[in-house]
Amino acid sequence: MNSELVIGIDIGGTGIQYGICESSGKVLRKGNLKTLDYPEPGDFVNEFYRLLEPEMTLLSNDYVFKGIGIGAPNGNYYTGSISYAPNLTWKGDIPLAKMISQKFSMPALLTNDANAAAIGEMKFGAARGMKDFIMITLGTGVGSGIVCNGQLILGHDGFAGELGHITVIPGGRLHPGTGMRGALECYASASGVVTSALELLESSREASILRNINDKSKIESKDIYNAAVQGDTIALRTFYETGKLLGESFANFIMFTSPEAIILFGGLTKAGDLLLLPAREHMEKNLLPIFRGKVKLMVSQLNESEAAILGAAALIWDRY
Amino acid sequence: MNSELVIGIDIGGTGIQYGICESSGKVLRKGNLKTLDYPEPGDFVNEFYRLLEPEMTLLSNDYVFKGIGIGAPNGNYYTGSISYAPNLTWKGDIPLAKMISQKFSMPALLTNDANAAAIGEMKFGAARGMKDFIMITLGTGVGSGIVCNGQLILGHDGFAGELGHITVIPGGRLHPGTGMRGALECYASASGVVTSALELLESSREASILRNINDKSKIESKDIYNAAVQGDTIALRTFYETGKLLGESFANFIMFTSPEAIILFGGLTKAGDLLLLPAREHMEKNLLPIFRGKVKLMVSQLNESEAAILGAAALIWDRY
Repeated sequence: MNSELVIGIDIGGTGIQYGICESSGKVLRKGNLKTLDYPEPGDFVNEFYRLLEPEMTLLSNDYVFKGIGIGAPNGNYYTGSISYAPNLTWKGDIPLAKMISQKFSMPALLTNDANAAAIGEMKFGAARGMKDFIMITLGTGVGSGIVCNGQLILGHDGFAGELGHITVIPGGRLHPGTGMRGALECYASASGVVTSALELLESSREASILRNINDKSKIESKDIYNAAVQGDTIALRTFYETGKLLGESFANFIMFTSPEAIILFGGLTKAGDLLLLPAREHMEKNLLPIFRGKVKLMVSQLNESEAAILGAAALIWDRY
Repeated sequence: MNSELVIGIDIGGTGIQYGICESSGKVLRKGNLKTLDYPEPGDFVNEFYRLLEPEMTLLSNDYVFKGIGIGAPNGNYYTGSISYAPNLTWKGDIPLAKMISQKFSMPALLTNDANAAAIGEMKFGAARGMKDFIMITLGTGVGSGIVCNGQLILGHDGFAGELGHITVIPGGRLHPGTGMRGALECYASASGVVTSALELLESSREASILRNINDKSKIESKDIYNAAVQGDTIALRTFYETGKLLGESFANFIMFTSPEAIILFGGLTKAGDLLLLPAREHMEKNLLPIFRGKVKLMVSQLNESEAAILGAAALIWDRY
């Protein structure tokens, strides 16, 4: 019998990662696309098929393709649709699983991108053996995948785990995508960190490497990271404040589902201890004593894109 | 074969309710004790045995007693202990399930009081047929029981569901039991509501029936309810503000586990629409659009004490 393969796709606000995966967790081929290159989801589906078709034909001598698993912001497992994702240019309700299934003539399943990452982490990463943990993705947006009793929490409608949209500062920053104020995502996403740095630059006269960037609208989170590594006070304070707010939020999350670990994933985790140390400090400070000192705060051990790709693929392994 | 009975106990900061239950949800005998009458948990266990022993002897002609289920603040299912409950005068770590099991010579199981209420609601009350809901108890303290995928969320250590201790106003009111600031329980418990009314009385010159109570330390939440029913502005505003904060918190809870319903339980729910209307309004206002208009906010349909007693008893029905 031929070995089996599944295609895993991780759709983000900026990039789309994909991989052709074995059930062992090995990724045979990998690639990525830029989300903004595809104004409509149909454009992406067509281009993705054009790209994959030759590879699949080649691999089909030795393998059988079982299906395609997709992780996407606001992805709903029950409906297979992406629903009104604030961080995607694709608007409205998009039946992406159906579109991909029809184009590729094989089963396709879809879930929230952070849920996919959580499954990947549980099967192949830092959460192996854990039954209760929370995965937080810090990237273009802030997402989450919540696992309790060894199961992904989907909620009655498939939309559970939108921790990035929890209000952490009542009346705080306006989220341009949702119109809501003070959501965690407004502070702990890549653009949230940039906004925090700009606010600090404006409210102080402190010297900062970041002031050398003339067009402030060009500042990216990695510029702030680079400045922080060089000891820039404004940049360091930006990460400290972001970490503090994350830690305070994690404390609330812990008192909700009492996880064994909170696992961070995504671009911002490259900041490492700049973010983790204040997060851990303020997480512990805001916990009831019975929760203190026992929840691990860690960064995903999987290659950045692989957790989500493997987790998306696992939707198919688990089901078919 | 004789029919089977289970004793269910609901321990609260003020009162202890108990019942002798059939598996159908019928409560054959009911009673209550005042928690503060028992300075030590051992005193309660002895008195409870003294009270129950004659009834059990009488009933044992026709029934077999299977065990005792207990709901208690900070109760831990895994350990059978009450651990450092801020709202109990019993301090430290109390192995109550073991103490009761030994005294009564039958199995005893214990869980968080709000978890017990959630189980009771799921088996016999408003949550029948639901797989995803959150039970919030509004009494001496604010507790919660979270059900996802038809299962109680216990967390890796059995302490999940401490939503009353989630920080809702950073730097807000000091919780005398935990030393933490701004927890939901500081605002939405019986004493929290009293504090809110006292703050409003102090910060305004508005006329209020509550000003007729000379010793302000004697004001109870039911005085505020009685005043509100008579149209007292300060009392009405107290419930509005409490409901608003509850609603904002519920929105965050919904974006966590996406429940089908939030079910309220406990003394404060007697305020009815005074609390429910602002709670519903501000819950909807703070939800992402994908969650709006689909989560039920309701009050327990079970007799006040029965949900927790029946839920505690269900621990035994489920296990033995």
